[in-house]
Amino acid sequence: MVERNNLKIYNSLTSDKEKFESITPDFVGMYVCGPTVYSNVHLGNVRTFMSFDIVYRYLKHLGYKVRYVRNITDVGHLESDADTGEDKISKKARLEQLEPMEIVQTYTNDFHNVLLQFNNIPPSVEPTATGHLIEQIEWIKILLDKGLAYESNGSVYFDVKKYNDSGYNYGELSKRDIEELMSNTRELDGQSEKKNPQDFALWKKAAPEHIMRWPSPWSDGFPGWHLECSVMSTKYLGDQFDIHGGGMDLKFPHHECEIAQAKGTTGLAPVKYWMHTNMLIMNGQKMSKSTGNTINPDELVSGNNQLFEKAFDPMIIRFFMLQAHYRSVLDLTNDGVIAAEKGFQRLMDAWQSMGEMPVSDESTFDVQAWVRTCHEKMDDDFNTPMLIAQLFEAVKIIQQIHDGGEKINQHDKMIFKLRMQEFIENVLGLKPAATDNNAKLSAAMQLLIELRNKAREDRDWALSDKIRDELAANGIVLKDGKSGTTYTV
Amino acid sequence: MVERNNLKIYNSLTSDKEKFESITPDFVGMYVCGPTVYSNVHLGNVRTFMSFDIVYRYLKHLGYKVRYVRNITDVGHLESDADTGEDKISKKARLEQLEPMEIVQTYTNDFHNVLLQFNNIPPSVEPTATGHLIEQIEWIKILLDKGLAYESNGSVYFDVKKYNDSGYNYGELSKRDIEELMSNTRELDGQSEKKNPQDFALWKKAAPEHIMRWPSPWSDGFPGWHLECSVMSTKYLGDQFDIHGGGMDLKFPHHECEIAQAKGTTGLAPVKYWMHTNMLIMNGQKMSKSTGNTINPDELVSGNNQLFEKAFDPMIIRFFMLQAHYRSVLDLTNDGVIAAEKGFQRLMDAWQSMGEMPVSDESTFDVQAWVRTCHEKMDDDFNTPMLIAQLFEAVKIIQQIHDGGEKINQHDKMIFKLRMQEFIENVLGLKPAATDNNAKLSAAMQLLIELRNKAREDRDWALSDKIRDELAANGIVLKDGKSGTTYTV
Repeated sequence: MVERNNLKIYNSLTSDKEKFESITPDFVGMYVCGPTVYSNVHLGNVRTFMSFDIVYRYLKHLGYKVRYVRNITDVGHLESDADTGEDKISKKARLEQLEPMEIVQTYTNDFHNVLLQFNNIPPSVEPTATGHLIEQIEWIKILLDKGLAYESNGSVYFDVKKYNDSGYNYGELSKRDIEELMSNTRELDGQSEKKNPQDFALWKKAAPEHIMRWPSPWSDGFPGWHLECSVMSTKYLGDQFDIHGGGMDLKFPHHECEIAQAKGTTGLAPVKYWMHTNMLIMNGQKMSKSTGNTINPDELVSGNNQLFEKAFDPMIIRFFMLQAHYRSVLDLTNDGVIAAEKGFQRLMDAWQSMGEMPVSDESTFDVQAWVRTCHEKMDDDFNTPMLIAQLFEAVKIIQQIHDGGEKINQHDKMIFKLRMQEFIENVLGLKPAATDNNAKLSAAMQLLIELRNKAREDRDWALSDKIRDELAANGIVLKDGKSGTTYTV
Repeated sequence: MVERNNLKIYNSLTSDKEKFESITPDFVGMYVCGPTVYSNVHLGNVRTFMSFDIVYRYLKHLGYKVRYVRNITDVGHLESDADTGEDKISKKARLEQLEPMEIVQTYTNDFHNVLLQFNNIPPSVEPTATGHLIEQIEWIKILLDKGLAYESNGSVYFDVKKYNDSGYNYGELSKRDIEELMSNTRELDGQSEKKNPQDFALWKKAAPEHIMRWPSPWSDGFPGWHLECSVMSTKYLGDQFDIHGGGMDLKFPHHECEIAQAKGTTGLAPVKYWMHTNMLIMNGQKMSKSTGNTINPDELVSGNNQLFEKAFDPMIIRFFMLQAHYRSVLDLTNDGVIAAEKGFQRLMDAWQSMGEMPVSDESTFDVQAWVRTCHEKMDDDFNTPMLIAQLFEAVKIIQQIHDGGEKINQHDKMIFKLRMQEFIENVLGLKPAATDNNAKLSAAMQLLIELRNKAREDRDWALSDKIRDELAANGIVLKDGKSGTTYTV
């Protein structure tokens, strides 16, 4: 049984590393904001979801039963945070002349495929915004009843000033001062339906040409983006749950609004630990389509790009990303990934050689101390780079055991192997890169065919038959033709 | 451009093969009833969805733009067709002590993984019942307004007698006589909320302990199973669309009810061509968990079962299934799959040898006639076994071209190769089985190591170095140790 009372999590709400104590012993509820499925998933998203995959994996490793909810935003996410602009999915559907739900399906599939490629475990529940419209409408009714929302021209907005006047603190997560925000902002658009620019949409009346629309007590329309996460997280995890995660760009306004919606409705703080991941940049600069400083997962993995010198297995990219802490900016560079590839291979080779480590009567290496240190690193806010450093300590020890410089007994060898597997496979989610065995087999076969030709020239029929027959017995058939010998498997 | 005016589809509604004419030229709308996600997908499901994958592929091959909608039933499917018993997903959730949506997620993932393994193309839209509750409620309101539904104790039922008295014909698809049905059925349960036993639920009031529940004008409850398909098919494909498919077990009552719901609401027949797939049986008997005559896809593919002598690549199973027409009963047997494996390999070998076919000045083989015949077979209600027979005709021709018995010119060779690829890869969705190259590589390497050891015994250093160096140049490293030579890739 793993000791699990030492985990500390950096809580964005308190800006402090806090001891983790789940609300219900043995159970953890975790909600992570998923993608808005209107375009292919980008590498920054991959990093974010991989970071929470590590949280999920480590909590399970510690023996918690985790309910991990990650949503799919398939309606309501407008182009601008100020509740203006087109719905992102509707816009894409208009541009591609497709039904919006075809856009949703295409990019949901892409998202699933990419995340699977990087060996992320699917969440326990993956709810969609369109799958929770009734719940969202019911929630809006409560906020209206409590006077914390108002209807305006068929749309409904959350009243931030009223919320703050009721003793709450809009801005508590992002450390923004709402009074200052309000005094600094002028409502330029005299036609605005909002009382204050900080107010945010709970329900938007749909323009006549808008396809994605549903009836509601206020208008045919669609829900505001922030609402879905409040509704779906509490539906599946309860009014108060343990962990809420997302990229740091979601802290404001999205997560700030989630807190306001939840407190306004239930009076309770919805989340105990807020976690935010940092950015992925490339070659020292922000990734951006407009500057061309961008690469998508498929281009990086296939090698079909101008920025990196070769193709990289997704496991190499995963390993590269985990070498940085989730709260640090990570700079994606060719040299960095090349170095990661070498390190990854060294780690895999050492791991796979553990079975052949010679066994001694006694151990000179304290495997339990090493395991404790590994846990200490992960207990320190999921510090994967420090865990990886510990795994390289193990690589050194494994080499020394092979060389006779260190000794290990049978029992410790078993523990050592088991723990290495747990940390590499279960906690970090790494597995050997898929080697291109087609190419290797082809190389080995060319050599065998050459040796067989030589044997035939030498009239060494015993040898040439042996090669042919032993291959045939293993399902590899040699075919002698006019232009030489080929093989089929 | 492929000639596409010859396609005929067997329409279950008219019991006749009919010329296919899409409602909107160039576009096809197709709806297929997807799984109720409360258990692992079984092989019979795989066959059904593979059959419609063929329809989807062939329509696209003919140049149609197809919108293919296949739903996920995540609520409302009760244990009994008579609207009694527990919701299948709720029951599983209760037994496994999980949130119902965790059950939904688990088995949706399984469904996707298995279908992908068998190389089925995902649908254009994959809507869920819980994602269309508002639409279902709106639909019920219309049926109530039209007097074709009635509320009873918080539930709402479709009034089959009233529907038939209005000039419609409940039973038109399944060829059942509703008067006879009604006169033969006694309502045994005096407590029933229904006016007639044939009436079916549009909305069910939830029992207090029922988790999956939503507010409605009639009660907190959940929608009837049949309603979701009417709502989702017409939402994404229009009030009238081209093709509706499903397993033949869904013909009654599910599809019969869909027709009644749609005609009752819009007055229009919703579907132009109804398609139903036949059963998969095993060793001559119906598959059934209770008799033990059952096998799941994973057991068949992994070889982890007592019924089949070995593991089979999913492509072998796909090929096996496509050797029967979708409207025939298919009997899954060990001998049948073994034979399919041999045939599949022969087809793949011939296909892969086409590049090496010798070219002549003239062709003795009429490739265009062969292509026409292939299309004729598929145009005849998607007759995959007859298409496969044509592909084996091609195998024979390919062999004869290799042997010099037939001749082909450069242009025809290109057409022949291209069309073979289209029919094998695009239309049938087949690709070479993943060969276990690890095992093959291992066998080739053992032989090379043995030959190298022999060379060293013979002091033939040139040869032993050559083997080591050429392998190393291809990324295979030989390691000589006390217990012999091993290799790493």
